[in-house]
Amino acid sequence: MNWDYLQPVKIRFGKGRVSEIKDLAEAMGCKRGLLAADPFFFTNGLADRIIGDSKGTLVGAFGKISPNPDVEEVDACAEIIRQEKIDFVVALGGGSSMDCAKAAAAAAMTGDSIREYHGTGKVLPKTHLPIIAVPTTAGTGSEVTCVAVLTDHKNQKKSPIVSDSFYPSYAIIDPELTYTMPPKVTAGTGIDVLSHALEGYWSRGHQPICDACAVHAAGLVFQYLYRAYQNPEDEEAREKMCEASVIAGLAFTLPKTTSSHACSFPLTNLYHIPHGEACGLTLDYFARVNKDVENGRVQDFARKLGFQDVDEMADAIHDLKEKMGLRTDLKDLNLTDEQIDELIRISHHPNLENNPVKITDEILRDLYESMR
Amino acid sequence: MNWDYLQPVKIRFGKGRVSEIKDLAEAMGCKRGLLAADPFFFTNGLADRIIGDSKGTLVGAFGKISPNPDVEEVDACAEIIRQEKIDFVVALGGGSSMDCAKAAAAAAMTGDSIREYHGTGKVLPKTHLPIIAVPTTAGTGSEVTCVAVLTDHKNQKKSPIVSDSFYPSYAIIDPELTYTMPPKVTAGTGIDVLSHALEGYWSRGHQPICDACAVHAAGLVFQYLYRAYQNPEDEEAREKMCEASVIAGLAFTLPKTTSSHACSFPLTNLYHIPHGEACGLTLDYFARVNKDVENGRVQDFARKLGFQDVDEMADAIHDLKEKMGLRTDLKDLNLTDEQIDELIRISHHPNLENNPVKITDEILRDLYESMR
Repeated sequence: MNWDYLQPVKIRFGKGRVSEIKDLAEAMGCKRGLLAADPFFFTNGLADRIIGDSKGTLVGAFGKISPNPDVEEVDACAEIIRQEKIDFVVALGGGSSMDCAKAAAAAAMTGDSIREYHGTGKVLPKTHLPIIAVPTTAGTGSEVTCVAVLTDHKNQKKSPIVSDSFYPSYAIIDPELTYTMPPKVTAGTGIDVLSHALEGYWSRGHQPICDACAVHAAGLVFQYLYRAYQNPEDEEAREKMCEASVIAGLAFTLPKTTSSHACSFPLTNLYHIPHGEACGLTLDYFARVNKDVENGRVQDFARKLGFQDVDEMADAIHDLKEKMGLRTDLKDLNLTDEQIDELIRISHHPNLENNPVKITDEILRDLYESMR
Repeated sequence: MNWDYLQPVKIRFGKGRVSEIKDLAEAMGCKRGLLAADPFFFTNGLADRIIGDSKGTLVGAFGKISPNPDVEEVDACAEIIRQEKIDFVVALGGGSSMDCAKAAAAAAMTGDSIREYHGTGKVLPKTHLPIIAVPTTAGTGSEVTCVAVLTDHKNQKKSPIVSDSFYPSYAIIDPELTYTMPPKVTAGTGIDVLSHALEGYWSRGHQPICDACAVHAAGLVFQYLYRAYQNPEDEEAREKMCEASVIAGLAFTLPKTTSSHACSFPLTNLYHIPHGEACGLTLDYFARVNKDVENGRVQDFARKLGFQDVDEMADAIHDLKEKMGLRTDLKDLNLTDEQIDELIRISHHPNLENNPVKITDEILRDLYESMR
């Protein structure tokens, strides 16, 4: 079996380490940073604290980032980078702020709008400003990936851009930043971590180092997610979920995600089910679909995690969702036949091709009918 | 718990991939390569094949590398690099050729002898020629580490140099290159892989990504090493041991090795026990010493590998060594009391400090007496 591996992001993990931004900027020879953050952090004091701690290294701020960041927000951020002669970007928040900052840090080095590279196949140049990614959820894993998902609302287009220039130079994982996540967000982002681990593992693009990371990360989710959900101040559970999140990021960034992510996109776009919850919704279903592929390697995964087999693991995923108040079906939406047909059609996202079992319309119909 | 992670080496794994040297050089914009290889490969045809496949990209060769590479060999290699205006180095072989090449590729960029940096504390500059590391054993893991162990025979000094500039740009792991390893070498280098995994895991510098790699690599060794030993042409076993070797390299390069490596140094230097065999000799002993540290995390390791507990895993290590004809004691050396005292004294290598249980003279005496 042939495989390639690359993981250029330097990780700094630990409580309070967000205060190291200034030191890392110095190590990179950077002096004028921009803080790109979810708007919430400009109201709750975190952005101010980080700017203060930077002792003048962070000279600008950008907070106009929506949950599905728009290409125009990226262009606005890139424009500030150019005008203020910014030489590094700190991305603080969940996936949206990291996606926006990655794209802006690369686009700023060109004279172009990011639209030129969004779903066009045009390749971004390799030069880009260094990024320090600071996630505030245990969640997306975006701090160690080279993907940014952007939306062009005007042209009704949502598409990822993949570029080696999107790998952050550093990821600072500071578990303290996740303490304020409310239980519902903890649950949704946490089940997203499990999706990254499982899908990275069973993806047709699987490979050994990512496999090892997937097993490690999934084990932590089963052990600690419910604790973090029940008690937001359980510091050990928060820390372990942060560890799970970044290591699941390593697990999926090269193999890519598969069926659960493919199906999540219409569920989020059409029915506004939050991303993590939408991924988790179909995770146990697809675990059962994939359970016997490639000489039982998904069964091996389940056994390494201490389950008898994949069915027992799938049951555990279902129970975990139920206990945390996450969706296990779509009954409340009262979906019509036409809506089911539409879901089946739009679920054929390219990621579906990464699934080890070919996902036919019949399988998708069985899935959605079972949830109706 | 705070931890940092860095793994800049790009990996290319798979049968026949040694032929990609030319492509990788092109991707790096390099045109004049030097092949630094163990002398054996200049007699068995492999070096010629690789130089031929490079289609003029490899313009020089260096084969004066001894099993414990000497600083003068490094200086000679660096001098060729300067004279021939070499712009990248391919290191082919076991640990010694990779160590020599790493040091030469960095020293060549200075006007200095490598002696200036060998055990002196003087830091090598960050600039260095790109290295493509091609291991021929499943083995050292040196292709993903930033360490080179060099010997200064004239000044009776053996010491590692650690430098971020030693990380190869690429590691090509081509399992076919290991098919010719004789069983005795397969056994010794394979037990070294297990040492890297176990010691990286229980090291005081342990951290989660390396833990995940350690569990994965050790599992492969228990599953495939004896098969590769018994049947050198078992392609699956060879491939899995190569996978174990590079992933164990990831597992120990940041946490560093501990007690078994510390004790191996005098056993190799004084009694010429090959490196891997010397590490393996004490591995089951130290597994038992370390079994209950840090809330039973070494017991967890054993259970993740399918053992009841560390004692059962230690028994399995002992059996594996016995079955492969590796040493399990030192009886044939008829060690005197003075020699035991000397072993105890010289085993206090800095790596011993990484062991999670403080290793006292009493423990070392018990170890060596039990093997006498």
